[in-house]
Amino acid sequence: MQKKAMTLSDLAKIVGVSESTVSRALNNSSLISEKTRLHIQAKAKEYDFRINTTARSLRLQKSNTIAVVLLIGSQEDQSVSDPFILSILGVIADELTSRGYDMLLGTHRGSGSDWLTHYFDSQRADGVIVFGQGDNEAEFARQLNTSKPVVVWGAPSPTQSYATVGTDCVLGGKLATEHLLQQGCRRIAFVGHMSYEISLRYQGYCLAMTLAGLAPQAAIDAHFTYKGGFEAAQALVAGGKTGFDGIFAASDGIALGMIRAFAEQQLRVPEDIAIVGYDDIPVAAFMQPTLSSIRQDTREGGLQLVDTLFKLINKQSVASTLLETRLLVRDSSRKQP
Amino acid sequence: MQKKAMTLSDLAKIVGVSESTVSRALNNSSLISEKTRLHIQAKAKEYDFRINTTARSLRLQKSNTIAVVLLIGSQEDQSVSDPFILSILGVIADELTSRGYDMLLGTHRGSGSDWLTHYFDSQRADGVIVFGQGDNEAEFARQLNTSKPVVVWGAPSPTQSYATVGTDCVLGGKLATEHLLQQGCRRIAFVGHMSYEISLRYQGYCLAMTLAGLAPQAAIDAHFTYKGGFEAAQALVAGGKTGFDGIFAASDGIALGMIRAFAEQQLRVPEDIAIVGYDDIPVAAFMQPTLSSIRQDTREGGLQLVDTLFKLINKQSVASTLLETRLLVRDSSRKQP
Repeated sequence: MQKKAMTLSDLAKIVGVSESTVSRALNNSSLISEKTRLHIQAKAKEYDFRINTTARSLRLQKSNTIAVVLLIGSQEDQSVSDPFILSILGVIADELTSRGYDMLLGTHRGSGSDWLTHYFDSQRADGVIVFGQGDNEAEFARQLNTSKPVVVWGAPSPTQSYATVGTDCVLGGKLATEHLLQQGCRRIAFVGHMSYEISLRYQGYCLAMTLAGLAPQAAIDAHFTYKGGFEAAQALVAGGKTGFDGIFAASDGIALGMIRAFAEQQLRVPEDIAIVGYDDIPVAAFMQPTLSSIRQDTREGGLQLVDTLFKLINKQSVASTLLETRLLVRDSSRKQP
Repeated sequence: MQKKAMTLSDLAKIVGVSESTVSRALNNSSLISEKTRLHIQAKAKEYDFRINTTARSLRLQKSNTIAVVLLIGSQEDQSVSDPFILSILGVIADELTSRGYDMLLGTHRGSGSDWLTHYFDSQRADGVIVFGQGDNEAEFARQLNTSKPVVVWGAPSPTQSYATVGTDCVLGGKLATEHLLQQGCRRIAFVGHMSYEISLRYQGYCLAMTLAGLAPQAAIDAHFTYKGGFEAAQALVAGGKTGFDGIFAASDGIALGMIRAFAEQQLRVPEDIAIVGYDDIPVAAFMQPTLSSIRQDTREGGLQLVDTLFKLINKQSVASTLLETRLLVRDSSRKQP
């Protein structure tokens, strides 16, 4: 029996599902059920259908590859270690696989945008997702002034030369600080190394403090690692006291490091000092005490980054996405019953 | 003044450093000091030297790309979420960048080795690093029976058709269990979902138990996530007791989830139940209590994976690497003063 070469669209019609479901099934995606996947794979086999990626790339002049670029701040000695970024990378990798795309992961340091040229000029990637807006949003926006498909993780930029996906950092900072105030905290510290996004979280903190008639404190500097938080907390403690009764940490990593340092100094969380983090990394709900945090949904964030990028690649118009920005109250900040 | 086109080797001789140091400097690697980096970059500018990656790729018929493939077990519903794997990925990404290579990250599910063909046949990658030996080492070895450069994270395979980098899992299991015995534990459980590597850790546990004249217990199944450990621990507790006084968890993720579940049941770690994990993930040292663990050094492991792969690419002979396998004793298992 002679079989006619069929398209993905043909197969989708035969099975009675969308093209993206077929694509996911054939790429062994975990986003559809085992049953659906096996059914579609059986149909594909029956009709002798397979995606010819290489031929398709050549025909379309596409690489079928998306680059994910981590820009590492000039102040970081460390490699990629932020638990939040590692977590969202896993989601992006899965989603790209399910769409039949490869993910090219690169880390770049320092200023300049040579890395952007690197991915686009030699057709290494059809689009780029960027982490690390960095210290200087205006300079970053200038570098990323390109007509190529680029999406950035983080807060929307006022100059807005590129699409972003991220939480509302000012709102997140305000929610965290208002919650600490409601728990009876009055001397509240903000801890984190300043960059564009972190300065927005600090603005939210300042706003909530001012509305409560309290003077905002200067931000306390800390690297975005467990160790960074640990060291910042150690530096705060003198004579078994910190001078604070509440802390809004700009990342969960910092918050966890601080809680460890306070435990070693016999300071109780939340009784002596209440703490709220930012990110809701997977381990936050499993700590002792469990960590209150502003949620940045890695699953929703990863899917939106990929979705926005594919719209750009397909020449559709896109807007920046603000993810739901929600406070999760757990034991680290629950002073009131 | 006419400048002669120079090679990387020429530049290295002029500066008086190795070629890899020059390569790292020009790729803004964090593995060399700021001072060295700036000095070499200045020299490169002076002699008008730059690495022409695209031209070099075309000339050498190379992609200048390494694929890192995460094989996801058939039993996992989740995406890439193991904190240990995410941590070592960051190290590999940095090391590849420092060598002027891109990293292609792919997740693949289920059996078959189509993914290997995918990377090599269309010259997407010069070599492949694989995570996830899976349940069946013999089947995996058959799939990976290739002359192409492939290195696998994990324990050496008896059939040894490919090079591996990993810790000595039998020794690790033995060290963890012997330590729990020394702390006075007698009813010790092993917790983790069986696969090739995990069965070796279980062998180490059985060996230590048998040598102490105790009967090994059947392994308790748990997924390699915080939630997996949490649920396994919940299932163990009945009437405020577990029937165990020690636990060797096959990963730190499982251990942390179990500690959380025990805390909610008012069981004290280590007083009521001592716990040792495996991996030494970054957060282990920052938990309450701090987590004892068998260290798998992500930095050393990542560097060795890359180093072994480049030797294979350069047609050098390689052996599998056993990383130092060391017990770190922290508070979660310290019953004796």
